[in-house]
Amino acid sequence: MAEHRREFEWFTEDHTGDVRLSIKARHLYGEDTPFQRIDFYECDTFGRFFTLDGLMMVAERDERHYHEMLVHVPMSVARDPKTVLVVGGGDGGTVRELVRYPGLARIDLVEIDERVVRLCEEYLPGVASAVSADPRVKPIFEDGVRFLKEAPDAAYDLVLVDSTDPIGPGEGLFSRKFYQDCHRVLKPGGILVNQHESPFYETYAQSMRRTQKRLREVFPVSGVYHFHMPTYPSGMWLFGFASKGLRAVEDRLPDAPAGTPAMPTRYYSAGMHAGAFALPPYVAALLSDEGGA
Amino acid sequence: MAEHRREFEWFTEDHTGDVRLSIKARHLYGEDTPFQRIDFYECDTFGRFFTLDGLMMVAERDERHYHEMLVHVPMSVARDPKTVLVVGGGDGGTVRELVRYPGLARIDLVEIDERVVRLCEEYLPGVASAVSADPRVKPIFEDGVRFLKEAPDAAYDLVLVDSTDPIGPGEGLFSRKFYQDCHRVLKPGGILVNQHESPFYETYAQSMRRTQKRLREVFPVSGVYHFHMPTYPSGMWLFGFASKGLRAVEDRLPDAPAGTPAMPTRYYSAGMHAGAFALPPYVAALLSDEGGA
Repeated sequence: MAEHRREFEWFTEDHTGDVRLSIKARHLYGEDTPFQRIDFYECDTFGRFFTLDGLMMVAERDERHYHEMLVHVPMSVARDPKTVLVVGGGDGGTVRELVRYPGLARIDLVEIDERVVRLCEEYLPGVASAVSADPRVKPIFEDGVRFLKEAPDAAYDLVLVDSTDPIGPGEGLFSRKFYQDCHRVLKPGGILVNQHESPFYETYAQSMRRTQKRLREVFPVSGVYHFHMPTYPSGMWLFGFASKGLRAVEDRLPDAPAGTPAMPTRYYSAGMHAGAFALPPYVAALLSDEGGA
Repeated sequence: MAEHRREFEWFTEDHTGDVRLSIKARHLYGEDTPFQRIDFYECDTFGRFFTLDGLMMVAERDERHYHEMLVHVPMSVARDPKTVLVVGGGDGGTVRELVRYPGLARIDLVEIDERVVRLCEEYLPGVASAVSADPRVKPIFEDGVRFLKEAPDAAYDLVLVDSTDPIGPGEGLFSRKFYQDCHRVLKPGGILVNQHESPFYETYAQSMRRTQKRLREVFPVSGVYHFHMPTYPSGMWLFGFASKGLRAVEDRLPDAPAGTPAMPTRYYSAGMHAGAFALPPYVAALLSDEGGA
């Protein structure tokens, strides 16, 4: 085997100024797109993974933690959803979980960088293949902020913002104007779920607080839920759940299929759904108007 | 300030053969004891922390995640506990949380290495000071396995095994014989909680499975619960909860003080207690007799 493989190297991501995670991996491919730098790697512990501008995005070993919690939480609460908008998520993992629901009629995937989709289809087919394979998925290669601005009112049951951090191409996906557009394009029973950073390291916690503050100004129901994400900084990560009225835990449908034998999952279950919304007191304090500053 | 500080260096811990966490820190002190190597460091992100044989043990920034979940989960279930045995835990964090309960009459702390206690008292007083300050705490510097073997029957309401990994000095604290002694020294309503490794990285997951299998052979009630521990490998960590009959979630006392204004906490709450026992399906599968091998 060895003669066909490149040498191992250490991929290192700085999580803070004084904490870094390093992964011994083979570099499979790298490319500079008009938007960002994309690199694909492979290692024993995490399988294949890719980075954008040097930051870990998706690793085979724990991507189901992320994609299942992003999709099955709102899909277990929404009432008979038909149309979903995914913003970002060019790796296809979110779409892969969505197409498991036969009731969905249309899934719009708005990704700014087509190269993310194409390269993930090549290097991470187990994550990305549903983007092209399922006819309900409509990939739209466009800036998410602009797409939302021009999208019609009340067009979607669900908006899932599967974004990078609020720096670089993902920055506009954390603005109040963007959340107002999300609210506008959602139907009356609509739900927004978004990548919501982490409460643990200070810079991420600041993003978390700012994001939740903006969401609360726009949505009558808004909160966060936590999950384990070992390849992300601190391993403690959040999604935001905002809606026009439905509550994340109290309104979960008791017959939701995710996590049952009808729709097996690796990380998500009814118990994990409820448990994820119980927050450590220090996180709740950071998110209260008084706390944490 | 710089002239009073030592140079920064990188402390690095290998989490797997191809994953490592590095922390830029000042080395404060190091010592070889008859049992192990102890080092103390300080860094901006995690505050002060110490390592045993090069493995992260306790960092100021997230030690409350660990110690609160180790102590307040069983203390919120136990019926009028009076006597507690802590095995390991020389850093004092477990004892610090225990002494918050006025109803406890006696806390035996069995730590094999007195130097851990003395050095933590010096370098981590916010964690360790209760060991000497509270007269109910009785430090016993002895091997935990031997202490348990010779301890009288039905002497404790609670046994908390606050151990290192099952290598080196901590190895015997994961054996079936040790768990049988834990069962024997517990009163009829007794509860055992122990450090239970992690389900994420393979070597840790093997320890987790082996440990749970042994516990189930000894205790009629046995399970695990998970929490976020950013300084530990993968950040996803477990404790085991085993008892002679009391169930961790169903039998939680509704008026337990931890996490209320009467006993403020950073990580623990009633919601976190219940949520921690909901397991990702892949973890449940690893722990089932059929799963995961």
